[in-house]
Amino acid sequence: MKLIRFGAEGAEKPGIQDHTGRNLDCSAFGEDWNESFLGSDGLHRLAEWLKVNQDSLPEVPASARIGSPVARPSKIICIGLNYRKHAEEAGMAVPEIPIIFMKASSSLCGPFDPIYIPRNSVQTDWEVELAVVIGKRAKYVNKEDAFDYIAGYCLHNDVSERDFQLRHGGQWVKGKSADHFAPLGPFLVTKDEIADPHQLRLWLKLNGEILQDSTTSDLIFDIPTLIEHLSQYMTLLPGDVISTGTPAGVGMGLKPSPRYLKHGDTVELGIEGLGISRQVAVNDPEA
Amino acid sequence: MKLIRFGAEGAEKPGIQDHTGRNLDCSAFGEDWNESFLGSDGLHRLAEWLKVNQDSLPEVPASARIGSPVARPSKIICIGLNYRKHAEEAGMAVPEIPIIFMKASSSLCGPFDPIYIPRNSVQTDWEVELAVVIGKRAKYVNKEDAFDYIAGYCLHNDVSERDFQLRHGGQWVKGKSADHFAPLGPFLVTKDEIADPHQLRLWLKLNGEILQDSTTSDLIFDIPTLIEHLSQYMTLLPGDVISTGTPAGVGMGLKPSPRYLKHGDTVELGIEGLGISRQVAVNDPEA
Repeated sequence: MKLIRFGAEGAEKPGIQDHTGRNLDCSAFGEDWNESFLGSDGLHRLAEWLKVNQDSLPEVPASARIGSPVARPSKIICIGLNYRKHAEEAGMAVPEIPIIFMKASSSLCGPFDPIYIPRNSVQTDWEVELAVVIGKRAKYVNKEDAFDYIAGYCLHNDVSERDFQLRHGGQWVKGKSADHFAPLGPFLVTKDEIADPHQLRLWLKLNGEILQDSTTSDLIFDIPTLIEHLSQYMTLLPGDVISTGTPAGVGMGLKPSPRYLKHGDTVELGIEGLGISRQVAVNDPEA
Repeated sequence: MKLIRFGAEGAEKPGIQDHTGRNLDCSAFGEDWNESFLGSDGLHRLAEWLKVNQDSLPEVPASARIGSPVARPSKIICIGLNYRKHAEEAGMAVPEIPIIFMKASSSLCGPFDPIYIPRNSVQTDWEVELAVVIGKRAKYVNKEDAFDYIAGYCLHNDVSERDFQLRHGGQWVKGKSADHFAPLGPFLVTKDEIADPHQLRLWLKLNGEILQDSTTSDLIFDIPTLIEHLSQYMTLLPGDVISTGTPAGVGMGLKPSPRYLKHGDTVELGIEGLGISRQVAVNDPEA
């Protein structure tokens, strides 16, 4: 299944995208796509419900805003420097153990929402990433069992303000957490639809120019390793998002000069099987 | 007011502690003490409701477990090295700008719950801290206005695994986020009851021996400065917890040798006006 959420920010309704690409309104199912839903075998219950109800679901209006495909999770955990060439372009050592940091969940937004360049930003940057959505409570998980804990996968742009992240006194969370710094989606693809999450092309374009182009086969730490590692330090809850890191080609690493997002720039990104998203960078209207 | 929550972990009910120290059941108010409550003028509505109903509220049974006084927030943000002598004992520079890091909200627990020493822990440590609870959405706040955004204050033990925090490949969130690493409470004291949050004694005892003893007047960055600073980087939501840092006397800094929590150790801590909490350290039963 491909789960979507649509409607005004903060008041999204649940839906699915069917195999023809139509978005269908699942409000009648009576639940949001959140921790409670995922933690109560919701994906299975939804699949059963769709067998009976899918043909009669109303279509989502084409004009509807698409939101994050999962409701605000308890945490968004990101993996730092998980592609070798990105570590090199960032001028940092290739990690021997996963580097993790948090992104405030208040940064979550929809896949076609604007990126807000925050007040005093000088280095707002992009990062296409494969995000894993947790399907059930995970604590002290062994990597052999890790896939049991996955609900599915999403496309994520881990928007980052490099000056805030690296030169504002620490830690990285400072540069990762502004509003609209986490466009997620367009949909959550359940894990049964992705044959191998470690064989997916991912890419990102800035104003039409391709700047990131890699494959998840280049991940230094694969998804089971990450789930095993993270779940030794904290309990992962249903709906939690793990963003697995970005490949080379971020603005900070460009030669001969770094490039950062300016008001009016368009970022487009995609992962094979997980769809495409697009954001226009704008100066934060609240700044 | 002093807000409490009581009952089984994950199924807490709301209550208050009255001026005689009795815990009263506010289930009839019909809301939990959470983001939605605080974000909809809940403290004012509760005060009005109590004028009519307080005398008829049932008392909380003395045997009831006391939970965190606020429901799981969108984020727990901690300030690193915010007392000079603690920075010195940690062997780190006194910061010129606030250091911030996140604690997974899944670490939240009640003030008398056990601290779980996680699997493979060798350096589980204590940190008495003054926590600020946000009362309304805060973004780009000026320090002059910061108190408008505060709901109240709580006692917090920012339990920390130093090996995980400092020697497991980064970042600090790794050592801050295990289950039961955030005992909060016993109550949330609304800001009107605290004349000056920067003039409060705070202390911590390990097995009866006093190891931390300081005052919030020693904070390097005061509360308005922290709210101004944080809200430039991320939007603070009602119920969010900001833990303002710990004074000297943590296990890592003890001379001649560091000391860490062992199964059976008892930690007791308090802040003037914010009550006392007590936790027994036990090996995580899930480890």
